[in-house]
Amino acid sequence: MALIVHKYGGTSMGTTERIRNVAKRVIKWVNAGHQVVVVPSAMSGETNRLLGLAAELEPKERGSNTRRELDALAATGEQASSALLAIALQSEGQDAVSFTGWQVPVRTDSSYMKARIESIEGQRIRKELDAGRVVIVTGFQGIDSQGNITTLGRGGSDTSAVAIAAAIKADECLIYTDVDGVYTTDPRVVPNAQRLKTISFEEMLELASLGSKILQIRSVEFAGKYRVPLRVLSSFTPWDIDLAEEAQSGTLITFEEDAKMEKAVVSGIAFTRDEAKVSVLGVPDKPGIAHSILGAVADAKIDVDVIIQNLSKEGKTDFSFTVTRADYDRTLKLLNEKVLPQLGEGTSTVGNPHISKVSIVGIGMKSHAGVASTMFRALSQEGINIQMISTSEIKTSVVIDEKYVELAVRALHTAFGLDGDSAIEVPKRNDEK
Amino acid sequence: MALIVHKYGGTSMGTTERIRNVAKRVIKWVNAGHQVVVVPSAMSGETNRLLGLAAELEPKERGSNTRRELDALAATGEQASSALLAIALQSEGQDAVSFTGWQVPVRTDSSYMKARIESIEGQRIRKELDAGRVVIVTGFQGIDSQGNITTLGRGGSDTSAVAIAAAIKADECLIYTDVDGVYTTDPRVVPNAQRLKTISFEEMLELASLGSKILQIRSVEFAGKYRVPLRVLSSFTPWDIDLAEEAQSGTLITFEEDAKMEKAVVSGIAFTRDEAKVSVLGVPDKPGIAHSILGAVADAKIDVDVIIQNLSKEGKTDFSFTVTRADYDRTLKLLNEKVLPQLGEGTSTVGNPHISKVSIVGIGMKSHAGVASTMFRALSQEGINIQMISTSEIKTSVVIDEKYVELAVRALHTAFGLDGDSAIEVPKRNDEK
Repeated sequence: MALIVHKYGGTSMGTTERIRNVAKRVIKWVNAGHQVVVVPSAMSGETNRLLGLAAELEPKERGSNTRRELDALAATGEQASSALLAIALQSEGQDAVSFTGWQVPVRTDSSYMKARIESIEGQRIRKELDAGRVVIVTGFQGIDSQGNITTLGRGGSDTSAVAIAAAIKADECLIYTDVDGVYTTDPRVVPNAQRLKTISFEEMLELASLGSKILQIRSVEFAGKYRVPLRVLSSFTPWDIDLAEEAQSGTLITFEEDAKMEKAVVSGIAFTRDEAKVSVLGVPDKPGIAHSILGAVADAKIDVDVIIQNLSKEGKTDFSFTVTRADYDRTLKLLNEKVLPQLGEGTSTVGNPHISKVSIVGIGMKSHAGVASTMFRALSQEGINIQMISTSEIKTSVVIDEKYVELAVRALHTAFGLDGDSAIEVPKRNDEK
Repeated sequence: MALIVHKYGGTSMGTTERIRNVAKRVIKWVNAGHQVVVVPSAMSGETNRLLGLAAELEPKERGSNTRRELDALAATGEQASSALLAIALQSEGQDAVSFTGWQVPVRTDSSYMKARIESIEGQRIRKELDAGRVVIVTGFQGIDSQGNITTLGRGGSDTSAVAIAAAIKADECLIYTDVDGVYTTDPRVVPNAQRLKTISFEEMLELASLGSKILQIRSVEFAGKYRVPLRVLSSFTPWDIDLAEEAQSGTLITFEEDAKMEKAVVSGIAFTRDEAKVSVLGVPDKPGIAHSILGAVADAKIDVDVIIQNLSKEGKTDFSFTVTRADYDRTLKLLNEKVLPQLGEGTSTVGNPHISKVSIVGIGMKSHAGVASTMFRALSQEGINIQMISTSEIKTSVVIDEKYVELAVRALHTAFGLDGDSAIEVPKRNDEK
């Protein structure tokens, strides 16, 4: 008997028929002798419907008081879907009880709309499990120390599920979603992308932060911190497929050192679109210069991603960074009006709102030279110019012209031996192809 | 400066435009120097939408565990509308904060779907009011001693509003609704029915229990218990009408003894349709006979209204009572199969599924003879046969054939001098017309 947390996304909870199927799937696990906690998202479309109503009424400037109310509003979506799932389980003869974030309680800080979980009380959940019930806990939400309702931001139900799994020391957390696992890259770009049977926690963290939308990044961080075995799998298989098969399906995010030894040097390729590059040219090369530029950008709440400072020539340097495309105009305006006057004569800005970032990720990189050179050679062979480079222990990112993004992803997928005929096999080491 | 509770029904909260108008009306009261607590219902249609989803999933038998989930589900409607109203107020420049039932907290018993309020903590509400905020409290819901969400049943937001007004010792509780007050009878039946400027608590209680749907009866009971001045008024006047005019509009439910002295003997006429009459004939007239009949009916959870036992003749009597029409067939079947065999030879049943109850209500009746005779004469003049009579200190009800109900109501409205040209004047005493 194991203690398992199931998380179901909004699409899986989208209709009463689908909720009934979730109930049947959960009961299959219970009948196999497991204790199950379920964390459902709101029915698909519900959060948007609620926030759409709010948008018709909202003040122009969202203060903390308005964000508080938006959280109280949005939290109703998960409360409703959780109650409906409990009713569906009861209807199928399975005793079940739903809890909201405040009933557990799931304690968070007070950052409305992007709260962070601080602690979860597992006692009430365990008590109900031991009484033979399926326990349903609303995803996405908690309460702060003042008893206000908070939400964790989009995708926050993933984080709720992992955090609850950590709190009750679950044996595994299963994220049921509308894809059947983690792929070597986006199958819409590379049709013969392969599903990974396992991926290391560090790699998953990089993939999540580099644009893969499969898991909210904070859920991966939580899994890492508390070492919660996490599996991403499809909720669109028939509910009555063999449990042993289902339990091994999808992609398992692991923490085992030996698991990584069998892994490819590069496990996956991530990419983002909708980025923009901004450069400040002719900057005097002296201490504090990065802060004088990026400090102003940070003060304007603009997130910066890749940052590059060129070699200095004649006491001058060029300073480049990327921002999301939505922030591009605002960033250039800020630099021209606020920053350049402070930097002095001879400085100027230049930008490109149509760039993309492509990243290779693999824990095997740590110990393998030649990975970057394989990457650069593959891109060069396709005539793709690399505009910026950024590296960490287990990833290498390049910034390129947006129009080459698919070409670059496909070339790298082949160069690192990730192409496959089936979507089941794990890619093998192949960094010198 | 006064402390006022506003309650808005689902129709008044039905669209974002209407929610904005509620916000403007509330701000008008704040700008006049008042502290305001608002209790909104769910947006019209929302509770039905939620329970409709549940109906697609519900087990055949609703146990307490399912009723618990239905309450968690239904409570989201008011949580959402409360947050939306707070946002609308903020958007209009008025600081506001919404609280759910559990945040206040509003403590109830554990009778899901028909919980009763046990206590309300007014401290947090008062603190926020004193900080210059409008406080919004979700109607319809609370928590039990175990921290489970409960709801008060349909129309429960009226009761929430009155209970909150009692808890914070509000000067007045204004029930904004889609009618502009309490009328001498239903204006759809009697076009020249008059709006009452005031009505006594006792009369309102009788009207609410006799079929008037303006206020949930428990809200009137609460108002009586805690002597909360209660006003029913229209939410469909323009929000910017003069506040002094608005504050005097509608109908005030009073507790003042001297107020009643100016009142008519009969204040209003209530009626119910959809009732049925059942009689057991030839019953042996001996002790315990009423229990042997009504006990079986009560065990079957059938509600009985008017009960009449005829004079005994030759040791036999007839026993009649009314039930709702939906229970008619079930009641007759129960009597024939379970009760008659115990009563012995010579007993039989007869029934009429098409009867109505018409009631005259007035605190002035206590001290006035001749009221009943005026009633019976008026009905007799229209050729309406009275099948049953039931009286209390301040009301007299008659059961008549359903087809005469409008005729009876109009005849009585005239006979007791309630007809008027305008809907503003209070009817004067006129019991000897």
